[in-house]
Amino acid sequence: MNTFGKNFRLSIFGESHGKSVGVTIDGCPPGISLCENDFLADLARRKSGAKGTTPRTESDLPAIISGTFNKKTTGAPITILFKNTNTRSKDYSNLVKIPRPGHADYTGKVKYNGFNDYRGGGHFSGRLTLAIVAAGVVAKKISSAMSFSAKLIEAGGEQDIEQAINDAIKNQDSIGGIVQCQISGVPVGLGEPFFDAAEAVISHLVFAIPAIRGVEFGSGFSSVKMTGSEHNDNIISASGTTESNNAGGINGGITNGNNIVFRAAVKPTSSISKAQTTYDFEHQKLTDLIIHGRHDLCIALRVPPVIEAAAAIAITDLLLTAKTTKY
Amino acid sequence: MNTFGKNFRLSIFGESHGKSVGVTIDGCPPGISLCENDFLADLARRKSGAKGTTPRTESDLPAIISGTFNKKTTGAPITILFKNTNTRSKDYSNLVKIPRPGHADYTGKVKYNGFNDYRGGGHFSGRLTLAIVAAGVVAKKISSAMSFSAKLIEAGGEQDIEQAINDAIKNQDSIGGIVQCQISGVPVGLGEPFFDAAEAVISHLVFAIPAIRGVEFGSGFSSVKMTGSEHNDNIISASGTTESNNAGGINGGITNGNNIVFRAAVKPTSSISKAQTTYDFEHQKLTDLIIHGRHDLCIALRVPPVIEAAAAIAITDLLLTAKTTKY
Amino acid sequence: MNTFGKNFRLSIFGESHGKSVGVTIDGCPPGISLCENDFLADLARRKSGAKGTTPRTESDLPAIISGTFNKKTTGAPITILFKNTNTRSKDYSNLVKIPRPGHADYTGKVKYNGFNDYRGGGHFSGRLTLAIVAAGVVAKKISSAMSFSAKLIEAGGEQDIEQAINDAIKNQDSIGGIVQCQISGVPVGLGEPFFDAAEAVISHLVFAIPAIRGVEFGSGFSSVKMTGSEHNDNIISASGTTESNNAGGINGGITNGNNIVFRAAVKPTSSISKAQTTYDFEHQKLTDLIIHGRHDLCIALRVPPVIEAAAAIAITDLLLTAKTTKY
Amino acid sequence: MNTFGKNFRLSIFGESHGKSVGVTIDGCPPGISLCENDFLADLARRKSGAKGTTPRTESDLPAIISGTFNKKTTGAPITILFKNTNTRSKDYSNLVKIPRPGHADYTGKVKYNGFNDYRGGGHFSGRLTLAIVAAGVVAKKISSAMSFSAKLIEAGGEQDIEQAINDAIKNQDSIGGIVQCQISGVPVGLGEPFFDAAEAVISHLVFAIPAIRGVEFGSGFSSVKMTGSEHNDNIISASGTTESNNAGGINGGITNGNNIVFRAAVKPTSSISKAQTTYDFEHQKLTDLIIHGRHDLCIALRVPPVIEAAAAIAITDLLLTAKTTKY
Repeated sequence: MNTFGKNFRLSIFGESHGKSVGVTIDGCPPGISLCENDFLADLARRKSGAKGTTPRTESDLPAIISGTFNKKTTGAPITILFKNTNTRSKDYSNLVKIPRPGHADYTGKVKYNGFNDYRGGGHFSGRLTLAIVAAGVVAKKISSAMSFSAKLIEAGGEQDIEQAINDAIKNQDSIGGIVQCQISGVPVGLGEPFFDAAEAVISHLVFAIPAIRGVEFGSGFSSVKMTGSEHNDNIISASGTTESNNAGGINGGITNGNNIVFRAAVKPTSSISKAQTTYDFEHQKLTDLIIHGRHDLCIALRVPPVIEAAAAIAITDLLLTAKTTKY
Repeated sequence: MNTFGKNFRLSIFGESHGKSVGVTIDGCPPGISLCENDFLADLARRKSGAKGTTPRTESDLPAIISGTFNKKTTGAPITILFKNTNTRSKDYSNLVKIPRPGHADYTGKVKYNGFNDYRGGGHFSGRLTLAIVAAGVVAKKISSAMSFSAKLIEAGGEQDIEQAINDAIKNQDSIGGIVQCQISGVPVGLGEPFFDAAEAVISHLVFAIPAIRGVEFGSGFSSVKMTGSEHNDNIISASGTTESNNAGGINGGITNGNNIVFRAAVKPTSSISKAQTTYDFEHQKLTDLIIHGRHDLCIALRVPPVIEAAAAIAITDLLLTAKTTKY
Repeated sequence: MNTFGKNFRLSIFGESHGKSVGVTIDGCPPGISLCENDFLADLARRKSGAKGTTPRTESDLPAIISGTFNKKTTGAPITILFKNTNTRSKDYSNLVKIPRPGHADYTGKVKYNGFNDYRGGGHFSGRLTLAIVAAGVVAKKISSAMSFSAKLIEAGGEQDIEQAINDAIKNQDSIGGIVQCQISGVPVGLGEPFFDAAEAVISHLVFAIPAIRGVEFGSGFSSVKMTGSEHNDNIISASGTTESNNAGGINGGITNGNNIVFRAAVKPTSSISKAQTTYDFEHQKLTDLIIHGRHDLCIALRVPPVIEAAAAIAITDLLLTAKTTKY
Repeated sequence: MNTFGKNFRLSIFGESHGKSVGVTIDGCPPGISLCENDFLADLARRKSGAKGTTPRTESDLPAIISGTFNKKTTGAPITILFKNTNTRSKDYSNLVKIPRPGHADYTGKVKYNGFNDYRGGGHFSGRLTLAIVAAGVVAKKISSAMSFSAKLIEAGGEQDIEQAINDAIKNQDSIGGIVQCQISGVPVGLGEPFFDAAEAVISHLVFAIPAIRGVEFGSGFSSVKMTGSEHNDNIISASGTTESNNAGGINGGITNGNNIVFRAAVKPTSSISKAQTTYDFEHQKLTDLIIHGRHDLCIALRVPPVIEAAAAIAITDLLLTAKTTKY
């Protein structure tokens, strides 16, 4: 399903080497100022070009083709397009015969009976995260009383990220990382029992981002080594402030007014220049595959604005939904 | 939202101290044999009574009140009820004035303007997971070519679970644990890009279960310490078998035919008998709270069948959805 | 799909001769007074027993089994059950072999591969409209600023309904009728473009009611004989009051503040005591079928409270949705 | 909500005088041949230019910007864009102050707090039906075993449509009409109880089309003058063929294998050149409004391909959904 959300709803479309990728955002309230420039800062954070990222660069200029009038949202669906310009015309059909380990080459082929657009990952490409970042910009405008901040806090198993990148470049092998996201200014009461617990909705969107292997809230996996008396967050004010924040700002699936804090594990990029074993479906035998071309050594460097956007989208959907039961 | 699923759809309802909890399952194919006895094994695994769990026991007898005929599913919605019998009639209103740390007492009160049923956690109670386990039984019957298995693999930070429980009893403080779930016999091609990646749908349901702090697939958070050449799973057969399973059986959000493997972090139970600081909303000051009554010391002991059910529900929804695009 | 609604959501379940029929209502705001007695007036209007309706009578007592506390809604899902008591234990299997014209006997059998509960229409029974009426009662409480009124305005092609019923009794043949529904006190701005136009959502629910053959708004089918200058409703006040109401209170899919007016055509009851030709699937030949038993001669007599409920449900869903875009 | 469908899902966007209108189609199976030329025939049927339609003509060339590869569908979402080219740059702000009777000028302004794009009807424009026609083309390809045919069978209250158009031209007043749609080759078993009865889903989409005032199936409103023995359709073959088709091919919300037949009432076009009374919100008094410009005298002439598309979309969604319960 390429749609997400109950009241703040996204539909995304596009392929890495097709004409465009884009997103339609439905449910945005009218009267919010919005123009192309508003997207540039977050899009720039997602861009490649920095050390450890792919040298393929796209201009990534958004075009708003519906849903605004006089630079304000109208309440009608907002569609934002990104043209694909820097696509290489080389032959990708080899990937169909010899699927890359860690990629969707094999699963995409089987799922779609061989009709999927396999060029550059097609609809599975990380390029689709442009659409998420764009929708996140709109979400942040709606949820303007909150602030969203995601950062890479660890790469290649080290806290010294620059060192980790340098090591990866030296080894010509990709690395992963951990992105932490914090949301402040959150009102009490977002999240819907049972299934739309705040963690459930956020994690749904975060796991939709390519390369994510894990998501944890508050003290996360380390909670399992704590006792209840260590883990419980004492409530210390009439506005629900807690002394610690092991819950990550959520109790019973409902935000408690403290910062939402979560972390996502980003796996090392699958495309690497080292030889790997895979199956050659044409010759029906194992083979060694070496992937040439332009790739990110540490895709985790580019993930923070995407996760930040995902958090903003999820929380904004819950915010709009919470309005429906105020009576 | 108390509904979940696109084609295998659940609606759950009920409160801990109300008349019943229950679930309606819509989208179940007709002709599957189903009677009350089919639920008993999984329900028994969720039951309390064992060392480390609450002494409050319920008979937990399911009643199928619609959707079957001659002990087979009809294609109409299946509603399963569980009566609440062992509820204590004591006064719970204190929780409204003095909310328990780690519980939904405070968030539920604010969200619902004080109208929520606070007795025993009300609609936030872990008792609602009965409905998930019941729906999981139906899901497993639909996805009968697969097998689902969840186990507690660690408690209180130790692999020796019995020892951990004994320590917790001695310390009279609750502990958490890690539940690992494995799904075998999975066909290639389940999961929908973009938003309904298999990990996204599974994690959505798992995070809806009370007390979950983290979810990870395959090598999970440890992926971030691996290089791409270590992490990528070599494809070693024409059916997509991989040498390792760091991806947890999923590539690009689509199942690859290998076992799905994920783990969930279960926090230590929030209700503990030790004194905790919280805010007294009646007297508008901090106070010490001691929680009396019957509680689980390690709720993680009872979580495996719930997570197994969540996995079965998620995968079954994806299985039914996958049928729609076979042309 | 046995669920309906975006923000005011229903799930219905049950069969005519099963244990119960019922409904779960999700998305109801907290703090609304609600108890079993609130349902009795509308349920009584739907009841049989009057001239022209079936002599089968059920007590139709609703039981609220979740979602209320101290006689107020809590914000959690509200489940309402109706036990089936007056079911006859006769053998219905004949209907599978010799399907009744105008009924779902044949379509239900094919759709569900013969596993459907065919007794008394099973899940297709008009008895399921109990659930709609119950949900309508809750909807009307949420939309209490509006008033909903549906009436039978024509039966058997005559405006004199009593005469039409008497004729039908004399002829021992069923008749249909037209139900008109009016909603007053409607705020401007309900309805969502494009797909959730107010007419679209209302008609969706009304056509879900068994026996409905047509739905028209405002001047409806007679509009096609009018010119634009006759049909357009002049706007004559600053609050959008119109001189005429050919639009039925809706422009561009959005309510305009005038009364919503629509009519539904109810077909003559399918079960009749006269002989009809149908196919005998057992003996593979045409046969004459005579239906014995208790039936409504004019089901249209019992439809008004159901249509009124459908209107209230649809409008309430749109009302809650409209809140999400107020910014 | 600008999205529709459970398994064959549409999202539409755009405004009459914005950059483009378009549609994203999600859930289309892979491997179906699809290129821009496939859309031209149906789009041509919707076009203006004929006698009785507006002289504003658009090239209406569709651009497929995602979801196909080598002229076949891939399984990924298909986005189709139509650029707006023939838009007049005149000032439309008068419509905000002096809303046109029968249009969404007033309702749109109130609903969106004055932020809606009012030029040429904005998002409420009939131009959005381009998106429906385009999606219908894709739906017809999926449901290729069925055939869909909608025709104008009456205009201005007459069966002689050409005469009615000539009269309307002479009178310079708009007229309405009745469109009949027939679907043949329908399998038994489409439609889902309770809420997704085939009539319910079809009518939902048809009422989403601007200018529709009524929808009726089979013998429709004339059913109310029939007795049950006249109205019931005798079943006369083992494949469920019926002698008559008063049910319009649907029993109990489920298709019975006979032709689906329904009619829609199209109101006379709201934009007329005769003076009409409306409210002047600037000067706060009643005023006479004369609408200049290019308009359809009988929009019903252009509606058949839109209704045909709506029928194809609805039925295709039910067709894909029906696959999920085949076990």
